[in-house]
Amino acid sequence: MIKNILLFFLLVGTFGISATIAQISNPSDSTLIRSIYDEVLTHGEAYENLRTLTKTIGHRLSGSPEADQAMLWGAELLRAYGADTVFVMPVVVPSWTRGEIASAYVTHSDGEREEIHITALGGSIGTPGDSTITAGIVVVKQLTDLDTMDADLTNGKIVLFNRAMDPVLINTGAAYGGANDQRGRGAIAASRVGAIGALVRSLTHSLDTLPHTGAMYYSEDVKRIPAAAISTVDARKLAALYKEDSNLRVTLLMNCKALPDVEQGNVIGEWIGSELPNEIITLGGHLDSWDIGEGAHDDGAGVVHTIEVLRALKAIGYVPRRTIRFVLFINEENGNRGGIKYAESAAQESKKGTRLYVAAMESDAGGFSPRGFSMDAPDKLVAQVKNWAPLFEPYNIHRFKKGWAGVDIGPLKELEKKPLLIGLVPDGQRYFDFHHSTSDVFENVHKRELELGAATMASMIVLIDKYIPAP
Amino acid sequence: MIKNILLFFLLVGTFGISATIAQISNPSDSTLIRSIYDEVLTHGEAYENLRTLTKTIGHRLSGSPEADQAMLWGAELLRAYGADTVFVMPVVVPSWTRGEIASAYVTHSDGEREEIHITALGGSIGTPGDSTITAGIVVVKQLTDLDTMDADLTNGKIVLFNRAMDPVLINTGAAYGGANDQRGRGAIAASRVGAIGALVRSLTHSLDTLPHTGAMYYSEDVKRIPAAAISTVDARKLAALYKEDSNLRVTLLMNCKALPDVEQGNVIGEWIGSELPNEIITLGGHLDSWDIGEGAHDDGAGVVHTIEVLRALKAIGYVPRRTIRFVLFINEENGNRGGIKYAESAAQESKKGTRLYVAAMESDAGGFSPRGFSMDAPDKLVAQVKNWAPLFEPYNIHRFKKGWAGVDIGPLKELEKKPLLIGLVPDGQRYFDFHHSTSDVFENVHKRELELGAATMASMIVLIDKYIPAP
Repeated sequence: MIKNILLFFLLVGTFGISATIAQISNPSDSTLIRSIYDEVLTHGEAYENLRTLTKTIGHRLSGSPEADQAMLWGAELLRAYGADTVFVMPVVVPSWTRGEIASAYVTHSDGEREEIHITALGGSIGTPGDSTITAGIVVVKQLTDLDTMDADLTNGKIVLFNRAMDPVLINTGAAYGGANDQRGRGAIAASRVGAIGALVRSLTHSLDTLPHTGAMYYSEDVKRIPAAAISTVDARKLAALYKEDSNLRVTLLMNCKALPDVEQGNVIGEWIGSELPNEIITLGGHLDSWDIGEGAHDDGAGVVHTIEVLRALKAIGYVPRRTIRFVLFINEENGNRGGIKYAESAAQESKKGTRLYVAAMESDAGGFSPRGFSMDAPDKLVAQVKNWAPLFEPYNIHRFKKGWAGVDIGPLKELEKKPLLIGLVPDGQRYFDFHHSTSDVFENVHKRELELGAATMASMIVLIDKYIPAP
Repeated sequence: MIKNILLFFLLVGTFGISATIAQISNPSDSTLIRSIYDEVLTHGEAYENLRTLTKTIGHRLSGSPEADQAMLWGAELLRAYGADTVFVMPVVVPSWTRGEIASAYVTHSDGEREEIHITALGGSIGTPGDSTITAGIVVVKQLTDLDTMDADLTNGKIVLFNRAMDPVLINTGAAYGGANDQRGRGAIAASRVGAIGALVRSLTHSLDTLPHTGAMYYSEDVKRIPAAAISTVDARKLAALYKEDSNLRVTLLMNCKALPDVEQGNVIGEWIGSELPNEIITLGGHLDSWDIGEGAHDDGAGVVHTIEVLRALKAIGYVPRRTIRFVLFINEENGNRGGIKYAESAAQESKKGTRLYVAAMESDAGGFSPRGFSMDAPDKLVAQVKNWAPLFEPYNIHRFKKGWAGVDIGPLKELEKKPLLIGLVPDGQRYFDFHHSTSDVFENVHKRELELGAATMASMIVLIDKYIPAP
């Protein structure tokens, strides 16, 4: 047996043993990582930075003046924490306003009215002429349920899409993914069968009266109809009433509308690498948020995580080999034009050979206790990162799996030399309670949980900087 | 290589391959565990049971009428969910009342008064004659700091113990353990140097104005002095003022007091084993709580976890080999007389040979997202449980470590044939924000997180029932 091990090392040696050892990490890494966690847990500024972003600036939908303010704030902070250069990568973003009114009520056949809690889906048109529409409803669970329905049942109606997120999925993101076709394409499906409006059950496991907004889309080949999110409690109520009262009517009023596109941009801070300045490690969250709540978990947390990595690594005296780019992306919520633009720029630089994009990390799943990472990468790279698991074990970071890494960094997958894409995975059980609703506020973010996320990201960035091979 | 593997299996076969395979679990276990999580996540009743315990009964300190009510409620529920027998194991518990008043203020040397947020520590005497005491203060971080101080500095003073929980410890329980000597033995140390009162910085990482109570003790050889918890914000403020103003005075008023012991008890539901009815698996949480807040995380969560395991395993049609005991312990908070009594009874039965205590599991660390288990057991048993990690991986349960298992089941360690002691470990970052304070209420428990804890416990109970060897 011992002979075989010796033989193994001799063979490995022939193919380059130094690379192998370097890729496994060395004992000083555990000390380095401990110093990162200590720094963040004792002198962390992420929480106070999040307070400013959420309480002073507030929500910041792409195209809004608040998004402009957030860009200035982010650039200032990256400079203050010692980024070598800070610049804005211009991005033309959509602009949309919720307007002042979004209300709905149900009228029972006996004439009694009952208010229901709704909010416009992002991108929706308002009700025609900013006046109410009133119609009977039809309740479905799947978009395809509409295809086989009698036209009388759908024509001129308001469709309620009432599919709940699946409670048995442990990964709440998967439950969200399994239900969000209703929100994204519900208005298209409803319009196709003659409906005049769409109500979509809010994407949350929580049974409450908060409507959760989010992006919805239209298709050029069907008429645009207004679409709103309805709270889970009201969706359940409406679905029950629908069975009992065939004369039930719903009245909807919204004056949201699209505005002309405007130029904003990705805010980028660069920390130039000491050995390999043209090799880029991208790290980011998105600066824009929905226009209700404060975008605290989504994605204020990711923004301050990103900035805290810079602060903490500077504070412990780390010297990066490669250039680390701290990117505050714009327009993740309703278009991902920031992420797309960043990848386009990366593709150009890669083609010219001026930059090599080695890895990209994103935090866009909330500021909760970190559990690990999800990697969009070849098996070999995933295995390499998994080898670092013992370094994270003291911090209760156990999850190292192949999977979705993030919306903003997603387009980088198209690069010819694919970077390692890696997303922070916080505990996800509470995320959709707040997501895209008025309750996504600073008070619902926990200081230590937020800090642990930042320390976990900073530790992974260091290991990537030191050991991940260039693609 | 293949030859060696065959040889390995042949050798293992000689020593009993059937036992080895049984201890590793089999493929049907993953199906069984999936059915447990599905059941709890779709039909779970733990959350609504917790609502009743916290909102209808409320807090329930040992000796209180609410603790009596909670015992009746627990017994009723265990019966309703199909326990074969339900009985109360009588336990004589201490009784103590907070009284109506606990207030404190600081008087600056210019005569200005400022209120500070305190609450009596559990077990403390009131201020003498239920009147105020007023004294200068001395601020220390360690109990031992008092030993070397000049008598003038401590005599007749009120001592503020101001050691914070260590933020760099990832395990908040360890940070708590590193600071709670102040609460438990602060009054003894202060009295020994002539002080007339003790204020103890609340044991929480959160900087807020909530005082956190908890057990404190006296020693027969020194005079009893009143002791109170002070909020972290006020402790910090007082420590700062102490440096600036040597004439600072603190006034304290509390009318808490001890009452005579009363008889209450551990509520026990038994589900008789089908094959090994005399082998006992104990599962529990504690029914008593502190007398502020609602004892929602501490330990309403553990109580409803325990009861939910019975409900869910019955619902999926599980037939236990061994007898499972669902124990709602009394008096964990201020004496652990319930846990001690349970172990005494177990010792008697063990000695007689009528029962064999195989394992005991406890949930007393809150209703947060479960992360794994902590085991107080020989390495061999710990290794066996660790082998089951792949079965828990789909549920994000990764932590299987040797360590502290719980207060209530702790005394079972003294049995001659030691059972496996195992504690549920939920994410601990938020626990001490609520622990022993007015904010430990139902609203701060998350439905899915609570349910995941119950499903995780039920899954582990099944594996223990099937595979753990009798001690």
